[in-house]
Amino acid sequence: MTSLSFEGLIAAKRDGNSHTAEQIDRIVLGYAAGEMPDYQMSAWLMAVYLNGLDPDETVYLTDAMVRSGRVMDLSSIPGPKVDKHSTGGVADTATLVLAPLLAACGVWVAKMSGRGLGHTGGTLDKLEAIPGFRIELSEEEFIDQVRRIGVAVIAQSPEIDPADKKMYALRDVTATVPSIPLIVGSIVSKKVAGGADAILLDVKVGSGAFMKTEGDARALADELVRVGEALGKRVECELTDMDQPLGNAVGNALEVAEAIKVLRREYAQSALWDVSLASGSRLLVMAGVEDDLDSARARIEEASLSGAAIEKMRDWIGAQGGDGGVVDDPSRLPQAGYSREVRAAKSTYVTGFDAEGVGRAAMLLGAGRATLSDRIDPGAGLVLAVRTGDRVEADGLLGTLYTSNEDLFRDAEDRFRSSVHLGDSPVQPPPLFHER
Amino acid sequence: MTSLSFEGLIAAKRDGNSHTAEQIDRIVLGYAAGEMPDYQMSAWLMAVYLNGLDPDETVYLTDAMVRSGRVMDLSSIPGPKVDKHSTGGVADTATLVLAPLLAACGVWVAKMSGRGLGHTGGTLDKLEAIPGFRIELSEEEFIDQVRRIGVAVIAQSPEIDPADKKMYALRDVTATVPSIPLIVGSIVSKKVAGGADAILLDVKVGSGAFMKTEGDARALADELVRVGEALGKRVECELTDMDQPLGNAVGNALEVAEAIKVLRREYAQSALWDVSLASGSRLLVMAGVEDDLDSARARIEEASLSGAAIEKMRDWIGAQGGDGGVVDDPSRLPQAGYSREVRAAKSTYVTGFDAEGVGRAAMLLGAGRATLSDRIDPGAGLVLAVRTGDRVEADGLLGTLYTSNEDLFRDAEDRFRSSVHLGDSPVQPPPLFHER
Repeated sequence: MTSLSFEGLIAAKRDGNSHTAEQIDRIVLGYAAGEMPDYQMSAWLMAVYLNGLDPDETVYLTDAMVRSGRVMDLSSIPGPKVDKHSTGGVADTATLVLAPLLAACGVWVAKMSGRGLGHTGGTLDKLEAIPGFRIELSEEEFIDQVRRIGVAVIAQSPEIDPADKKMYALRDVTATVPSIPLIVGSIVSKKVAGGADAILLDVKVGSGAFMKTEGDARALADELVRVGEALGKRVECELTDMDQPLGNAVGNALEVAEAIKVLRREYAQSALWDVSLASGSRLLVMAGVEDDLDSARARIEEASLSGAAIEKMRDWIGAQGGDGGVVDDPSRLPQAGYSREVRAAKSTYVTGFDAEGVGRAAMLLGAGRATLSDRIDPGAGLVLAVRTGDRVEADGLLGTLYTSNEDLFRDAEDRFRSSVHLGDSPVQPPPLFHER
Repeated sequence: MTSLSFEGLIAAKRDGNSHTAEQIDRIVLGYAAGEMPDYQMSAWLMAVYLNGLDPDETVYLTDAMVRSGRVMDLSSIPGPKVDKHSTGGVADTATLVLAPLLAACGVWVAKMSGRGLGHTGGTLDKLEAIPGFRIELSEEEFIDQVRRIGVAVIAQSPEIDPADKKMYALRDVTATVPSIPLIVGSIVSKKVAGGADAILLDVKVGSGAFMKTEGDARALADELVRVGEALGKRVECELTDMDQPLGNAVGNALEVAEAIKVLRREYAQSALWDVSLASGSRLLVMAGVEDDLDSARARIEEASLSGAAIEKMRDWIGAQGGDGGVVDDPSRLPQAGYSREVRAAKSTYVTGFDAEGVGRAAMLLGAGRATLSDRIDPGAGLVLAVRTGDRVEADGLLGTLYTSNEDLFRDAEDRFRSSVHLGDSPVQPPPLFHER
């Protein structure tokens, strides 16, 4: 009995003991139900941060979080349902590219997403930059839309994984976010509750990611796969670079426009396309619609080059109430009133980025939010003109800043300049994929 | 700026960094002012529990706690003002014995005390067992009483050390009580804010104490003295045994009655007297009214044997509205309606106690409270008939239980019996003093 008091459970973790499944249930379900107050949960979270969870405990935690709410039942949708999650980073617009690509290849994307907190908006914020786009659909509308056109992305229902919502909000203000077992519980529980058959997790590595080193990222990836499989899902992980922003655009409407151009294959070279191609082909194999990565890659290429993917994106946006015409004319997206070009003082090389700093510069322009009640300026942000390894001439363009409030330029430009690292010698660009 | 956000401060301690005085102020004063919410404080407290505070940080913490509220100004009382604090234990009635003894020797005791939470009541609960005794005096009444009769013990004002009150209540429910820097901050800040010139701290060691081993107790004692002196006070520490209850009585009125009998020197042998004599003589030297411990001890002996101390106790109780006649007739104290003798099944030796278990048995009889809203039964408790090392004949008395609710006997007797350890061979009694 005493062993299940919240104080006793906190003391056990404080002392480095392992919890039973029953004890983890008591903590997670007790917290979700409001029986365990925030101040006890935060003490437990800090004890977990410092003393860790063992492999079994991490599975118990994730499983309890799934059971804190509803689990989506996608069985009425025929065919393979996949989900993809990125651990987050700067200019990570891959979901906007991937979702229509996969749907165009016959793999269904029924995705629930969250809002962003921090340097840039989340996928929902990006979609809401499209005029008219509705992120709140009923479950019936959601499932019906996936059956009709193969793709829907909506706001996560409050009934799904409520423990994660409460725990994440608390971790965010108690310095307990960057803990591998807690990150694994949060990511995997949401994906399992989302109901997909196959889940691809993209773990970002580098200065703009949670995981700054490849070793940390690999440890997280291994745990994500282990725990996802323990809960009966097909899960794979990829490690991709976030030492520089993935795309060149940072900001909500700017990222939608870039995703459209990437799907239209307007760029000769694009890390965003390369990652989308790799993730998409891997998901086609995981979903069982292609046998090997080579044929999957060919199918993804075909879906983009034929225009099938951009058609799918138009249908998808229209189905959710948005202006599908943006895929043909991205200038119909919200535009910020002011722009400022940032140029190099002298001829130089781009030696790297503080990717998080680039994100923060975009946030200072109005593209992100510091608290959930802040309003996002959908047209604000920045577009990089250079990538690591590039040579830049004197007065050459480094990037362009966009905002609706001119007063924001000064701080944002300072932040942007200090986040683009320049030097006298060229450097090798970082590898885009850290591991396959 | 960021370095003073609460999240940033929690992260710094989580990562094992040291705080500046300014940072500790922000945490302690911010929490006392309600700017830092409980859930952030509890995460910080757990990080402190697990990563510690360095020597400077502990001083900053204690100093900030003092400054969170008022500091008592006892300068209008002529003569030396002393305070004594025990880290708590079972049947620790020393304050009730010491306060009138010291006052009878010309050393003033102006003491604020707290309520007990746990196995037995605190000093306030014991005093309130005396019919009519008022623990709430205005500051003027308090100082006036000390000037007139040399002793007053009252409830701590909410204006004194409010940070400690909030922090202690939170630590109590978040498994962050037994941390040396947090214990030191709590004890020393209250004593410094109480305004005494010289402070004697009695650190209990053993099964009934916070500190189970002499090493832990010595570490705590060293820190208490170091931090108290850093804040400009004369502080000494003694280590005394709590492997068995200090007195034989456990329970509020029962402990008052025992204190009276000890002051009357009715017992041939009493650990409670021995500790009171040692503490009292030490305080006389610290206060400067005696030059050495031998003469101080003689003066304490004289104060008790002459009846001066018991006279002082009568005056003290009367001054606070209580029935001073209890010192002549302890049967005027509240009596529990039921008693039960607990006897040995066969002839045996007392090999030791689970002192905390003895306290819990008393709590089960109604002598303590589990939450601050529980009511105490002032007459409830138990009186030990044996001490470690004693031989007990078959059917010999081990102790007597008292309660107002007969139904409580069964569980309490079970708990009591399992807390009195019996064996076939005699053992040496534990030393009463672990260090001088």
